[in-house]
Formats: sequence, C-alpha cells, structure tokens
Amino acid sequence: MIEAAATKALRDLLGDRLATGRSERDLHGRSETWHAPMPPDAVAYPKDADEVARIVGICARHGVPVIGWGTGTGLEGHAQAPRGGLTVNFRDMAAVLEVMEGDMLVRVQPGVTREALNAELRATGLMFPVDPGANASLGGMASTRASGTTAVRYGTMRDNVRGLELVLPDGRTIRTGTRARKSSAGYDLTALFVGSEGTLGLITELTLRLHPIPEAISAAVCGFRTTDAAISAVTEAMQMGLAPARIEYVDRATVAILNAADAAGLPETPHLLLEFHGSGAGVADEAARFGELAAEHGGSDYRWATRPEERTRLWSMRHRAYHTILASRPGATAIVTDVCVPVTRLGEAIGQAEAEIAASPLAGPILGHVGDGNYHAILLVDRDDPAEIACAKRLSDAMVAHALALGGTATGEHGVGLGKLHLMEAEHGAAWGVMGQIKRALDPEGIMNPGKVIRQN
Amino acid sequence: MIEAAATKALRDLLGDRLATGRSERDLHGRSETWHAPMPPDAVAYPKDADEVARIVGICARHGVPVIGWGTGTGLEGHAQAPRGGLTVNFRDMAAVLEVMEGDMLVRVQPGVTREALNAELRATGLMFPVDPGANASLGGMASTRASGTTAVRYGTMRDNVRGLELVLPDGRTIRTGTRARKSSAGYDLTALFVGSEGTLGLITELTLRLHPIPEAISAAVCGFRTTDAAISAVTEAMQMGLAPARIEYVDRATVAILNAADAAGLPETPHLLLEFHGSGAGVADEAARFGELAAEHGGSDYRWATRPEERTRLWSMRHRAYHTILASRPGATAIVTDVCVPVTRLGEAIGQAEAEIAASPLAGPILGHVGDGNYHAILLVDRDDPAEIACAKRLSDAMVAHALALGGTATGEHGVGLGKLHLMEAEHGAAWGVMGQIKRALDPEGIMNPGKVIRQN
Repeated sequence: MIEAAATKALRDLLGDRLATGRSERDLHGRSETWHAPMPPDAVAYPKDADEVARIVGICARHGVPVIGWGTGTGLEGHAQAPRGGLTVNFRDMAAVLEVMEGDMLVRVQPGVTREALNAELRATGLMFPVDPGANASLGGMASTRASGTTAVRYGTMRDNVRGLELVLPDGRTIRTGTRARKSSAGYDLTALFVGSEGTLGLITELTLRLHPIPEAISAAVCGFRTTDAAISAVTEAMQMGLAPARIEYVDRATVAILNAADAAGLPETPHLLLEFHGSGAGVADEAARFGELAAEHGGSDYRWATRPEERTRLWSMRHRAYHTILASRPGATAIVTDVCVPVTRLGEAIGQAEAEIAASPLAGPILGHVGDGNYHAILLVDRDDPAEIACAKRLSDAMVAHALALGGTATGEHGVGLGKLHLMEAEHGAAWGVMGQIKRALDPEGIMNPGKVIRQN
Repeated sequence: MIEAAATKALRDLLGDRLATGRSERDLHGRSETWHAPMPPDAVAYPKDADEVARIVGICARHGVPVIGWGTGTGLEGHAQAPRGGLTVNFRDMAAVLEVMEGDMLVRVQPGVTREALNAELRATGLMFPVDPGANASLGGMASTRASGTTAVRYGTMRDNVRGLELVLPDGRTIRTGTRARKSSAGYDLTALFVGSEGTLGLITELTLRLHPIPEAISAAVCGFRTTDAAISAVTEAMQMGLAPARIEYVDRATVAILNAADAAGLPETPHLLLEFHGSGAGVADEAARFGELAAEHGGSDYRWATRPEERTRLWSMRHRAYHTILASRPGATAIVTDVCVPVTRLGEAIGQAEAEIAASPLAGPILGHVGDGNYHAILLVDRDDPAEIACAKRLSDAMVAHALALGGTATGEHGVGLGKLHLMEAEHGAAWGVMGQIKRALDPEGIMNPGKVIRQN
C-alpha cells in the first residue's frame, strides 16, 4: 500500500493521470506468461521527463516501489509489481523528438514503439533494425537489452542505444552518452543502464542508432538432415565473412506442426531461413554462396529469391511458426525458454533440449536465432495446471544449466525479471555480487523495480 | 611510500619480480606526452591471475595505490603514479590462451599485444581488427576503450571485448560476460570495466571477438576542395549503406608537410583515404561507388586499387603522416588532441580548430578517423617550454568545448587519464557523479589507479 501522503502528492502532480482503480491496477499486474498477477497500488501516466523526476522524487521520499511499463510484452514478469507500489506507464511519452539523418541517429521518448518509429522514418531511407517480434516500446527494449532476428547483423539494444536520459532513484536526472559515434570519456553508463530492467532508474529519452534501409534483400530457405549440419553451414558462412541479416532455425517438430496445420507437405527436417541485406549484386552473391555451403553440408531444396512476394513465401514457415505452434494445443500458454550458447555448441544444446522435451509430457518445438546461438523452446502448458508449469520450469532450468556448462547464458534476449532471478548466481558467481553493490550504491532504498535482476531483502 | 610491511609481503610473494630500483620506477613513471614524470614506489611482474589477486589483496590491506601497465603507450598519463604506489606490469602475462575458431573468439592474457595476437592468428583466417596505431597491449586497449582507423567498420574495444576476468580492489576475482554472442542476464559489467582505465579493478584475462580476414581489400584516395565536401561524401556514403573499413582524413597542412619533406608534389587540399573489405567483386563495387560520390562532391584525382603494393602506395600519405609531422619540427613533442563529434559537424569542428591553431604560435596538422567523427590535431611543442605546453592545452580545451557544444566528446579513443580529468564535469554533468558513486562502491579506499577518470580526495 502507498501511504496516503504519497498518494496525495502524486494526485496533486498528476490529477486524473494517476489511476488507482482495480481494473487499471490489474492490467498492470498481469504477465504475458505463467507468472501470477502482481498488481501495483497505482498507475501513473507522466507526460514528460520532468514529471517522471517529480514522481520518482515523491516515491523516494515515501519509500514507494517504482516500476516502468512500456507495452507489457516482456516475458519474464519484468513489469509486474511483487511489492506493490507505483507503475509508471510511458503511454503518453511516445514522441519521436528528433531525426538526425546525416548522423543516422534518432532521439525518442521511451513509449515510442519500434513499429511506430520505423513508420516515422520511412521517408528518410533509414530504419531501426532491432526486432524482438512484439511491437515493444523502445524504452522497454532498452531496459531488457532486447534483440531478435536481426541481431546477427545489426546487434542488440546494447549496440544500438547511443545515449539515454534517465531519472535516478533519488529523482536526479542525468544524460549518458553523446551524439558522437564513440567515446573514451569514463565509465560506459549507457551500457550499464541498457539491460538493467528499470532497477537503477527510469529511461525518459533514448538516442538510437539508425541504419540504411537496404537497397536490396534476398531471402533463402534450406532443409538439413540434422541440426548439426545446419549449424556447421552457419559457422562456416560466418568465418568466410558472409554477413546475413537474419539466420533463423526451425526444428523438425515445428515443421511437423506446420504440416499438420495445413498439409503444407514440407520435408520434416530442421530448416534454416536466411535473409541478406546489401546491394542487388551483393545479396545475390551472398545467397548463392550460402547455397554452395549448404550443399556441402547436405542441405536440400535450397531456394532463394529477391522479389518481396517470393521472399515472404520462402519465409512463411517462420512467420507462421509461433502462432501455429500455439494453436496446436488450443487454450495452451507458452513458456518460452531463452538460452544462448556459443554457436558451435548450439547443435549439442538443441539436441539435449529436444531429448529432454521428448522425455517429458510437454510439447516444445524449437525456434532459434542461430547466428547468435540463441534458441527458444516453446513449451506448451495449461496455465492452470501447476504440474505442467513445474515441468516446464524444470525443463527450462535444465536447458540453462546445460547452456552455462557450454559457456552460454540463461537469457539471450528476454532478460531476468522474476523468472530468471534464481539462475543469476549460477551464471555470474561473484560478479552477481558486484551487480548488487552497484544497485545498492545507486538505489540504497531499493525502490526501483524491486525483486528484479538483483535479490533484495 | 609503500610501508615496509607491504613491501615485505610483496617481496615474499614475488621475489625478484618486485622491482624497487630507481631505473625501473622511472621507466614506469614516464609518459608518452607532456605529463611530468610520476614514478611508482615499486613495480610488480606477476605471472598469473592468482598472483595479481594476491598483490591487490596486499595493497588493499596496506592502502597502497595499484596501477596497471601494458606497453606504456597511453597518451593521457593513464599509467603514471601521481600518488606513488605499485605498478603492476603485465609483461609476463602475455599468452594467447585459447583460440575458438568456430565461434570467432580468443581468450588472452592482458599483456598480449595486438600485433602478437594477429601473428598468432594468421593461420586461422581470422583477425583482431582494432588498431590504435601503437602496438598496445590488449589489456591496456580494453582499459582505455581504444579504437583507431578500423572502428568505423569493426567497432571499438567496447564492441570487441566479449568478457573479462578481473581482480577487484578488495582482491576478489570475478568473470564477466559469456562466450555467447549476446546476453540479457543482468548488468553489463564487461562494458562497465572496458574504458574504466584500471580504476575499478585489474584485467587478468580477456575474451575477444575475432573477424574473418577479408577475402579482398580495396584502397582509395581522393582530394577534395574543402573539408566539408569530403565529409559530405562520407556521410552520404554511409547513408547509402557503403561500409568502408577505414576512412581517414588528412588535412591541407599535413599534405604541405609531406610535400616539403620529399617533394611529393601532392595537390595541397584535404584528402580522404579509404579501405573496403569484402569479396573481390564487393570491394571493387564499393570503391567504384565511392568514386562516383566523391566526384559529385568535387573530389579530384580519385584512385583506387586492390593489389597490396598499389594499396600501400595509395595510402602512403597516411602511413607517413604522423612521423613526417613530428620530424617537421626536430626535437618537438606532440600533444595530440582527440575530440569526437557527430560526423555531420566534423567539417565545422575541424574548420574552427584549424582557425584557432592558425591564430596560435604552434603548428598542428590534423588527421582524422572521419567515419567516426574523431580527429586529432598534432600540436607540436617544445616539451621544455611551459608557454608552448600551456598554449597547446588551451587549444585542446577549446576544441573540447566546441566538441561538447556540438554534441560530441572530449575523447574519442585516448581516454581520460590525467590529461582530460578537468573536462569530465563539463562533458557528463551529474552523470559524472554517478561514475563517482560506482567508483566508491567498488573501491571505497580509492586504491585503484587513483587520480584517473574520477576526482578523488
């Protein structure tokens, strides 16, 4: 519960942009996945950075937890409120503030979604390439260090956030980074705050890198007899200097589900789907060279295309995968795992995951961003069946243990939130303690998104 | 002075790998540039990470400053010892520990130099591309977030350090990062320590990203009537998606010095030198396309080549520049400025710098990594003339003030050290205070490289 004096101060500041009704609180307490509802005590809708600073100042004085909220599409309960408090929803801070075409930068408020940004950029010939699937807010994407299908070429949010404006836990506002492409001027606070999931402060503005919309795009698809063969083709391609913009993996189980759904008649083997960005001649050359490599690794039925409608057709397997998997068990919820391993160990990691899923009562087709070594098992569970939830969590934890043994990480792109907190000590060892020292230095009262990333008493 | 008990403990640990003689102390107190000598009280030569942890543990117990030392090629006095203490020289920790070809990673000790690493990698077809000019140690390069001519394509040390092993100020050892290409598992400690200049801990191991040695390279050179015309060609090229591996700028003054040195007969205008990496067809295409763009911007005498000896000849202007500039005033020392601005503002920044240098008694030709917006004025001074040193520092500070007004940074790649400390508040504002909070949280006694990056009492 927020004490009355704090509520009054917030009400005086925000008027009816402070919501305390049941339905809005519940809406901000839910999760996309298996976490139980954890609503905040109130929801604020600030209209600018100055209001955010005042809100945090009030919360600091009264010890009220502060949780940032973008689109609510996080998968690990990042924006839930296990200790109540105030959720700060950035819905009304969704302006594209400045497009700097020549420097290929854009300054945005945190509530702008990636699709809205790209729509706004269309006339410039530039794009923001990070694509986590969901139409997430850019503030949320920075907070979880999101990435997705294009990271193999364009990097993650780590690589594409040039600077931030932030409100710290004590209400101070700082700016990190510059508009220059590089700097050696002290500690890299931008990188520290990207991926900190709102536990060190709230992002009120982002300066993002943009990239040219490619002159040409080629798309390709290929079946392989085994996952290992597909991975070998990928690692060799990257060692040769091919630079695909996307390299997606679809496992045998997913292909079977697609065939069952619409009699697509696809060969039921692991598949790779690729995309190349560049000049017309360049993307044709890259697609052809990957085809040769794929053949050397026993790839079959390699096809590639550059015309948009043909590209869409080649990639339809991937575009339909997630929803077809979900629909394959009506009423099911997905628990999506997210380990990331060195690419050379990916075949082994996926093989072990497939075996463990096969030995369990659950279905769990696998999709992967293989250029990064990141894969997701889509574990289908009945949300109301605790035994199934427990089984999915056991499978997920086993994949993490295996990934850590291979030199990987518990989460390639979804973040820690509530769902991966118990794995951080195993992953980081004493370095997790250093993260805790930084957290306590900047947020000694522990008001910023408590219970996430760092264990707090 | 290190107290006797500390010296005894260090001597017991290191034997004759602890040096306290005058000549070795002096050697570790000197700077490449104008800073006065500041020798440590002793120099340690550890042979492994465990010894580094013991050394730091002893220093922590006795309050002895600890300064890391790679090759001593830093330009801002990073490795000098203004408060005495112990310099830890990584000469004997220079092993390449593990090459992971398929994952394009390498694990090295901090004393390995970039040239030694690339020599070791030659047979693999892979390379470590970050090239600051000097044959610096990789630990030192990580500590200053170094970059250089290839950053426009391959990024800086920020982008190429995948993980670290570190000894913290209290003697604990931690590992940051994983071998996976990406992770969302908590705070990005790797990025925090890269560029922290040894003020938060000592690096005892690095895991670095490698890149394929390009199949083909093309080099190009072009004169422009004005700096602005050259910069416009560069920004348009990057918006079109051309991805040069190097884009170097040589100013009119430098060309005049080269002509004076050997009657080269070069047209005395600003020049760009470029390099493209890729497939044979790709680098020819990129060079040709840049030539068209250069012509649109009034570029003259555009030449490009792919054969190694011709490439070397085209680039000779750049290869000879620094030493020819130094030789143009016998006995002079260079004070090298290092601001970095948004690329679109580079013409303006360089123009103002040229005017201010012209109005001063000093010579200061300008070289630049223009794809990054980073330029260096090579201010030639008599090291023994305080008035000239003061003039150079005034010019440098004026360039920084202008760069900050343009949205840039005081240092693109050289780091803060002693030389840029007085500029950090102007650059970062309240964010510099946050850096101080982190420093005090991890190093409350302030023993790690005191006096650098953060102001300490």
